[in-house]
Order: sequence, then structure tokens, then C-alpha cells
Amino acid sequence: MTTTASPSGGTAGSADHTGSERAETLELSRRRLLGTVGAAGAAGLVAGAAGGAIGVAAAQDGPPTALSTVGSTAVAFRDEHAKHQAGITTPLQARGHLLAFDLAPGADRKAAAALLRRWSRTAEELMAGRTPAADTGVALDAGPSSLTVTFGLGSTFFDRTGLTARRPRQLEPLPDFSSDELDAGRSNGDLWVQIGSDDALVAFHALRALQKEAGDTARLRWQMNGFNRTPGATASPMTTRNLMGQVDGTNNPKPSESGFDERIFVGRDAGSGEYAWMRGGSYAVVRRIRMLLDDWEKQPLAKQEKVIGRRKADGAPLTGGDEHTKMDLDKNGADGLPVVPADAHARIAAPESNQGATLLRRPFSYHDGFRDDGAPDAGLLFVCWQADPLRAFVPIQRKLDRGDALSPFLRHEASGLFAVPPAAVAGGYVGQPLLEG
Amino acid sequence: MTTTASPSGGTAGSADHTGSERAETLELSRRRLLGTVGAAGAAGLVAGAAGGAIGVAAAQDGPPTALSTVGSTAVAFRDEHAKHQAGITTPLQARGHLLAFDLAPGADRKAAAALLRRWSRTAEELMAGRTPAADTGVALDAGPSSLTVTFGLGSTFFDRTGLTARRPRQLEPLPDFSSDELDAGRSNGDLWVQIGSDDALVAFHALRALQKEAGDTARLRWQMNGFNRTPGATASPMTTRNLMGQVDGTNNPKPSESGFDERIFVGRDAGSGEYAWMRGGSYAVVRRIRMLLDDWEKQPLAKQEKVIGRRKADGAPLTGGDEHTKMDLDKNGADGLPVVPADAHARIAAPESNQGATLLRRPFSYHDGFRDDGAPDAGLLFVCWQADPLRAFVPIQRKLDRGDALSPFLRHEASGLFAVPPAAVAGGYVGQPLLEG
Repeated sequence: MTTTASPSGGTAGSADHTGSERAETLELSRRRLLGTVGAAGAAGLVAGAAGGAIGVAAAQDGPPTALSTVGSTAVAFRDEHAKHQAGITTPLQARGHLLAFDLAPGADRKAAAALLRRWSRTAEELMAGRTPAADTGVALDAGPSSLTVTFGLGSTFFDRTGLTARRPRQLEPLPDFSSDELDAGRSNGDLWVQIGSDDALVAFHALRALQKEAGDTARLRWQMNGFNRTPGATASPMTTRNLMGQVDGTNNPKPSESGFDERIFVGRDAGSGEYAWMRGGSYAVVRRIRMLLDDWEKQPLAKQEKVIGRRKADGAPLTGGDEHTKMDLDKNGADGLPVVPADAHARIAAPESNQGATLLRRPFSYHDGFRDDGAPDAGLLFVCWQADPLRAFVPIQRKLDRGDALSPFLRHEASGLFAVPPAAVAGGYVGQPLLEG
Repeated sequence: MTTTASPSGGTAGSADHTGSERAETLELSRRRLLGTVGAAGAAGLVAGAAGGAIGVAAAQDGPPTALSTVGSTAVAFRDEHAKHQAGITTPLQARGHLLAFDLAPGADRKAAAALLRRWSRTAEELMAGRTPAADTGVALDAGPSSLTVTFGLGSTFFDRTGLTARRPRQLEPLPDFSSDELDAGRSNGDLWVQIGSDDALVAFHALRALQKEAGDTARLRWQMNGFNRTPGATASPMTTRNLMGQVDGTNNPKPSESGFDERIFVGRDAGSGEYAWMRGGSYAVVRRIRMLLDDWEKQPLAKQEKVIGRRKADGAPLTGGDEHTKMDLDKNGADGLPVVPADAHARIAAPESNQGATLLRRPFSYHDGFRDDGAPDAGLLFVCWQADPLRAFVPIQRKLDRGDALSPFLRHEASGLFAVPPAAVAGGYVGQPLLEG
């Protein structure tokens, strides 16, 4: 499961899960990457992730230094059963780009298929730490740094490619919510690309490579840049804080839990007949949620904690315990009122309040400076994953929209809904069963 | 030189270089930070830096995991001789914010002094990994992650505070250059703040804390966000690549070299009499340099290398050797022409071409999405340091402006020039000798 290169960088072995048939056009040129991290070492960084890590060994032509575990961690383009794309259950990465493209006028199904083939090939190569020919060189010296590239299809993609009859009902437009202030130019799109990496240059490099390959087939519609914690900045990498200072992601379902796959990935029922191409895929809802931080930061700590229903310091429920203690929604205080208020965000979003509706949150924070009104242009690039948004994001957001105490501090500024097909088979490309089926 | 906290997090020792008199209003609340990194271990990350690293030990109340060297690395607010501010010779950080503030109408010298006192105190506390009272909580769980905060004064600051007579001649406005397309709204400013950290949330946290403390005294004029490599992504952390893919910083002067201090920091001559308050300080020139990446990436590799004068793969001069080999400016090729072309960027910027003029480059890359014309809004937040810009940045940029082969691929979009005073003495604040002298 490891790749090795000669010190001269001239030849390279190939990770056994990647298509070696393309090796002649590529070269392993991460010459500065030091050290060898085996599968065991790297796996520690992504324990429990379905999109697991593989070890990548690289050449050593400089003076010996410490192992470079951040750089050398590679995420497989397809999991071991070739079911799911990476970037869904992959641990949060320090840097992220969300991009939407529209097919150019005249680009038909064949052109879209060719683009997805180019993109899939490049994503697989970059994720394995290899450099395409005619490369910009921006990521040289670094390893893949947990790079993931994830591809999705918007509702309009199906009309543009003559595949309207095969568009899943899950791509019906999301309903309007009262807190929406959506910018159509930064919403939706024919094609969606999510890039994540623990290194900002590696992420930028992938973005430029994919954008270049869009060529005349698709043009960039919108782009958003985000971030999470840097590996090693904290000892709890699976948990992050958002820009309000709240621990985020505590109540996320875990891949090891029973029912996880059924809730997050499209199964037999939703992926049969005309929709079989989505079996093993997932639906991503993307919301750009600006935080009114000037207002929020004026609230006393006790008020902030009642709005959320959790303690700020450690994310524990107001009903006690630690971050991972189950919230006691029925507990009343000495005043006879619920300890977790009726309008607390954590109560309203809880599966118990939504007939078990569950989604997997996998966000990036964003911070694009400040607005004309002086307020920070900052908040959350909320990305959530589910087998069916009509049974997950939509009912939960409807409920939040009606009575979430957090809503006054948020503005939903952009929105997207994308069908994210299962992983490409070896030698194939993402979406191939739809486009050629 | 280390700070320790009890596992309950209730009490904390104080690093011996920080003001313990403020400990009562602060708490060491990085409870999740695991492990203890001693001065020796941390020093490995900042070898040779004048703004050296100290080790910070933190409590361990979760399950034991690997050492968190990224998070626990702290940079001292003042170096051991209290001469220079941090963030000048500190190694490049993964995340950076550049901010300029203007004093509000009515804010006088006294108000400016009070602001610099608040800012200095907060910067020192945050850099040591402590959390101010009434904190936003955004950086909880993380260590200081090499946070630095650096303060500078623009030319207009002196007029606003009645100190025009003490404005150094080094703050005379930079000359116009032919490649300038400067946006005045994103240039200059009364006060300049440079924030750097290896963790984006820690950097954002510091930004919000400082912005809040500006209060009614100063308002944000402009802000730029940038990045460099993540620690561990590559084994050569002192070198980075810019978004053109070129190795950047190879020819930087080293703090260990003779003459470094004289070239980068204000010495006895320039810091005497009315200007003694700047002794040990430095001048920062800030340029937002957009790269025309669509044009650049179309150039063949050989053309790119001739434009720069160095090989792209490893940064070695075209005259041979490795990255750190001295460029042979006199060497001709078989065609009788100089191997490093007359208009190559590296030739024109070289000290040998500029009567020894030297500056210390310490940039961040930036990437703010794309422009209305579809081109990437990306490039370099060029920050350079010198004892006297009239003997460093100005002559070098004049020469580049006349004949640099790289110029057609760059647009200088914003510019700033700031006097960066020496470090505050213990219990004092940055700029105190000017404001109270």
C-alpha cells in the first residue's frame, strides 16, 4: 500500500489501488517529501473514516529531518469497496474550496462525460501525490496532505445533458426558508467540486488543475474558500469550533454506528431502476451561513449557552456531563423550566426532535474580510451529507426555521443541493453509469 | 521557560518572560492541548529566529495522544533582549492576516496610546496561549500555534497624533512605479497589524480580539488574508512556493549572517535623537501583488525559468547547483548570451545588482476567489523588512520596474509602508517611547 520513488525521482512505483496505466504521463515529483509513513502510521490520523488513509512513501534527497506526517497522508480516491467518494467521511481538513461550474453553451452529454473523466483521473492522481504533466508546480515539495476531491451534480445538470428523466426526486429544489437571503449567483450550479487538504497550497494546486481541465466545457460559477483546524493545533481533531466559538460536530453520526450507511448513503431502495447509478452515493446540501458576529459576541456567555443548549467551554449539554454525554431533553431546572430551552439550537436539531432525521455535518469556516457595513464577512460553509435530503436537511431546517434561538444570529446567503455519485470504478470516472448507462 | 497548568485547569504558572501581574484577569484555558514541548523541541521549529520559540506545557485531561507540537509552540512577544517585535524573523506561518486601522475622528495621542497599550497586552497574552476575560472562545482547545502579532505605524499616524516632527524620513511616501494599479482604500492606514499563526482559528480569534479592542478609537480600513505551507506538509519549512509555483525566499538574508541586524533593524545612526524610539525597529513594505496566473500558466516551463532565472523544480540557479548555490551572474551559455538573462527577476533583484541592497521577504500567498473577468484573484501579500526602505525596497523595486521580465505577469494592487517600533519593554507597550517620550 505504499509508493516509493528513487532518489532521482525518475521512476516511481504505483500505489496498488491506482491506475498504473497512466503512469507514463505522470511523474512522482514530491522529491522533498521526507520519510516514509506506513499505512499504520497514517491510519492513526483517519481512524474510523470510511475514506481511509493509505501511506505514501517518498524519496529522500535532502538532509534527514523528522517524518512529515501531514504531507505524506493520502486519502484513497475510492474506498476499499469502491463504494463512496472521498471527502464525505474523511476527517475535516484545514483548508477547503467549494466550487460550482456551469456547462458551457453547446457542451452536451458527451462533453460532460469527457470532463468528468478528465477530472476523475486528475483527482485520483493528485490525491495519490502524483503530479500531472504540464503541472503548475505549486504543490511541489509537499505530499498530498490528505487531499480529497469530491464531485457532485446539480439539478440543472440533468436538463443540460438530456437526462431529465433520470434526475432523482431528491434534487427537487429546496423549499424557501424565512431566514434565507440567498444570492442566486452563488447558489446551485450544474457541477459541484469540493476540495479539501491539510495544506493550502496543495488545495490551491488542485483547484487550478481542475479549473484548467474544465477548458471550454464548463465555466466557474462560484467559489468559496474555507478552513478548519490545522493538524496538531489541538488534540481533538475530529471536533472543531466554529467562528462563534462553539464546539461543532459533537452529535455527528459515526461511521461505526449501526444505521450510518443507510442514513448517509443511498441504498437499494433509493438507488434502483433509473436511479441505480446513485447507489452508494450521497446528497450534499451546501449553505453559506454568515454569522452576525458583532451581535453574537455581545451576548453574555450564559445567553449564548442557552441559545445553543451546550456549554461553550467543552460542548457538554447544559444538562451535564461532558461533550459526548447524551443531552437530557426532559430535564427541568429548579424553576420548572427545561434546562435546555425549548428553542435551543441543539434541541431543535436533535434527531429525537425530528423523527430520527440525521445528517452528517462536514463544514468549513469562512472569513472573507469585512463587508461594506463594517461587519465581518465570516461564518460557516455548512456542508451536510445524507441519503435523502427530504428526510434529513429539509425537515430539520424547517424546524430550525420556525423557532431556533440561533436564527437571529445567522443569515443563509447561498444554497446548493447536489447528487454526489458513488466512487468511480477503477479505470472509470465519477458519474459514468449515469452518463453512459 | 515553560508554563504548566494543573489538570483541572484552575491555576496556571506563568512563563517567566510574561507579565504575571495580569494573571488574575486571565486563565490558561487551553485544556485540550496535550503534551509538553520543551524549549529544545520547540526551538527546532524556529531555529535561527530572533523571535524565538518558548515551550508551553499544558494540561492533559483527555486520553493520551501524540504530542501536539503545532498547537503548543509559542513565540515570545519580545525576544530575549527585548529588541524586536515578533513576526519579522519568525518562520513563515500557515495563516496570516494583514489589517490597517485608521484612528477615529477625535481620537488623540492619548487615545492612540491607550489603544496600543490594550493591543500590546492582549497580543502578549494570546501569544503565550492565555485567554483574555470575556473571550469569544474561538481558540479554545488549541495552543498558541506560533501566533505572532506585530504592530506598525503609518505616515498619517504622526499627523493624527501631533507627532509630525518625529516622523522618520523613512516614511516618506513610496515613489510611483509604472506597474502600480493601486487601490487607495486598500493601501496605507494609520495603524498596521500583522497576525500570523499556524492555525486559522487561532489567527481569526486574535483578529477579533484586537478588532474589538479598537473600540471607538480606530476603525478597520482594510484587511487581507493569506497563507503559507502547513507545518509538516513539506520537509523544507523555511522555503515556500508562491502561487506561480516558484520557490520563494531562497535568497533571503539569514539572521545568523553578519550584517543582518544592520540591514533589517534600525541601528544607532537612524535611531538617534528624535528618532531614538525606532532603534531596534524595522520598516515594513506591504504590497498586494496579483499574479496573472492564466497568462503565466500558459508559458512553457523553459520560458518561466528564464523569467525567474531559477529552475522551477528545486529553485536552483540556471547556472547550476542546488537551491542554495550562488547564482553566477557572469556565466554565458554556448550562444554567448548570459545563462541568467539580463531581465531575469532573480538577477535584477539580487543584492549584487543593487549595491548590496537587501530586504527580508516574509510573504503570505492570497486567494480570494475570482474576479468579474474570470481571472483568479490570487497572488502574493508581499511583506518585506528593512532598516531603511530608501536603501532597500525603493531602489530594488525601481530597478524591477524598469526591466523585470516578471512584471508583465504581476499587478501591484495595494501598498503600505509602516514603521514597526521595537518590542515593548515588560509592562510597557509598542510605541510607548514615541507616544510618551
